[in-house]
Amino acid sequence: ICFFMIKQFQEQLRRKKIGMALFLNSSLHKQDPNIFYFTGVEVEFCILGIPSKGRPFLLVAGFEYERVRKDSRVRVVAIKKGKLFDQLRSYCKGIRKVGVNHTMISLSEHKMFRKELRKKFIDISRECMDARSVKTKEEIKIIEKSCSIAQKILKKMLKGFKKFKSELEVAEFLEAETRKNGCSLAFPPIVASGKHAGMPHYMPGKGKILKGFCVIDFGVKYRGYCSDITRTVYVGKPSQAEKEIYEEVLDVQKKSVKMCMGGGSISGVFDYALNVLGKRFPHGLGHGIGVEIHEWPNLKPGGKEKFLDGMVFTVEPGVYTKKYGIRIEDDVLIEKGKSVILTKLSKELIIV
Amino acid sequence: ICFFMIKQFQEQLRRKKIGMALFLNSSLHKQDPNIFYFTGVEVEFCILGIPSKGRPFLLVAGFEYERVRKDSRVRVVAIKKGKLFDQLRSYCKGIRKVGVNHTMISLSEHKMFRKELRKKFIDISRECMDARSVKTKEEIKIIEKSCSIAQKILKKMLKGFKKFKSELEVAEFLEAETRKNGCSLAFPPIVASGKHAGMPHYMPGKGKILKGFCVIDFGVKYRGYCSDITRTVYVGKPSQAEKEIYEEVLDVQKKSVKMCMGGGSISGVFDYALNVLGKRFPHGLGHGIGVEIHEWPNLKPGGKEKFLDGMVFTVEPGVYTKKYGIRIEDDVLIEKGKSVILTKLSKELIIV
Repeated sequence: ICFFMIKQFQEQLRRKKIGMALFLNSSLHKQDPNIFYFTGVEVEFCILGIPSKGRPFLLVAGFEYERVRKDSRVRVVAIKKGKLFDQLRSYCKGIRKVGVNHTMISLSEHKMFRKELRKKFIDISRECMDARSVKTKEEIKIIEKSCSIAQKILKKMLKGFKKFKSELEVAEFLEAETRKNGCSLAFPPIVASGKHAGMPHYMPGKGKILKGFCVIDFGVKYRGYCSDITRTVYVGKPSQAEKEIYEEVLDVQKKSVKMCMGGGSISGVFDYALNVLGKRFPHGLGHGIGVEIHEWPNLKPGGKEKFLDGMVFTVEPGVYTKKYGIRIEDDVLIEKGKSVILTKLSKELIIV
Repeated sequence: ICFFMIKQFQEQLRRKKIGMALFLNSSLHKQDPNIFYFTGVEVEFCILGIPSKGRPFLLVAGFEYERVRKDSRVRVVAIKKGKLFDQLRSYCKGIRKVGVNHTMISLSEHKMFRKELRKKFIDISRECMDARSVKTKEEIKIIEKSCSIAQKILKKMLKGFKKFKSELEVAEFLEAETRKNGCSLAFPPIVASGKHAGMPHYMPGKGKILKGFCVIDFGVKYRGYCSDITRTVYVGKPSQAEKEIYEEVLDVQKKSVKMCMGGGSISGVFDYALNVLGKRFPHGLGHGIGVEIHEWPNLKPGGKEKFLDGMVFTVEPGVYTKKYGIRIEDDVLIEKGKSVILTKLSKELIIV
């Protein structure tokens, strides 16, 4: 994958006359997802350099060198003690403009870079966001696999739903299955029963599973790429009115997916869903998925951006009140101008 | 806990004539640990405001409000759609100086804050780091519990070591036990056998556990607070020379712990360990633990900082070659000027 991504990105750099792009991971709480995207490795502290021409490099602490080298898709270089900036300066020789990611680089890091390198620094966050939003064929294959693993696990969970005593048990089952499948969680699973389902980001509790709608939102990370599916089941016997609300959300979900097409307005699809669901629908309609669980495109109001072939994102309308909540979410790919659903698990209301 | 921490921090703000401190979480890849420290909650996107006088507030998206309110130690306020900066401006009325964390806030965020709030922004990263490095009694109790859970799990793992077929199985066992104990991992466990132990941050593999030293580095997060223990066991029968090298590391570890004392030089203890172990010891001697797995103090060369009562940190000398590695790590608290080991698991070489 990497070769193609980096080639494309280097072309962008040349177009903007940027000699070098620098990315920085500085603590476990501040990891630039672009570093994993380009290199395939996660390193607590490191600097990735992508020159507009020539070989990228990943600077890591000496004691990380052997480990990182085994997995990195780009050349790994050990930082010589106390010589980090000497090394960086030598890579940046003859370069005037350096690109950095303004959405991640901190004020202290930027200050240090400026002082030590004495270059012109330019924001390349937009270029990174755009590059990552259009997936390569290889990335799409990985995301498809990520989706298929997540839905296999969800299916297994739904089959044995009756045996779970609490929301937490459901979440723990999902997590254990994730690990069995050689994946990690894309995010802490949401299992929200009864009135809890009225909180879109509710964290599963130890208490009994409540009657009514139960929202289960789950995804895995497979080879670094996220999936993200939500299904809403009904615990007990739904009333006619409840069935109708579910069908209403499902209808909006299906129509929204169809409205997503190459060249079509991204915010337009959100506007459609909001228009139908109104105030009961308090969040975005969807978000890009990739190495991050939330990336571009953002299906929110405003903006003139269009869907492009290769974009992969969620479509997840929902309705919430103080008493209940319903959300239905698929992962969708734009292919040859049309939307293709990657998460094929049935969306008919399951009564458990 | 919170009340005391915030009171102390507000005093610092008043001393620096800062009217308001603002902290920001902007994505899952960029989470300011100070927000969890002060509020006890994790929210993907939120802004925490701590005024120098009066009540702190945590601004969150409307759909997060109910969930976050249940767990937050500070007042939670829902962001009104499109009105975030109006709300922030009203909280900052009459305030001239605003403190932000320069090690976390990104260039784009800083630019937006400046444009929207039109205040003087001042770096408070040092104040945050210092505040967090000295733990309150309540925090120490939580960290003690975190350590005792981690060592209980390690003990159980060591007892059944023979049944594990691969490094990965050991890591999976540690992770499963962590969850059973209601905790999460403080970091992905390191299980490095044979020559893998020569890489200090090696990730466990699927292959057979190799003979020789096996480094196991593991910690849990209990109520948000990290523990971090390393023990090195021997798979097979160690030679006399190997036993001696182990004893050498153990001796440095014990002496280093003793050297840590209130008012004593932090870098001085590192210098001692490096002096004895030489080039075979390529990393820091230790790091603070708390809501982050790596925080202040940093037992590294240089700097004139002193140990203070209430600091909690690791002491973890090691030696590494291409063929093997040894590391022994405890968590240590400075109490009444003296170092107290919180991880009481035996450090004698275990032969498995």
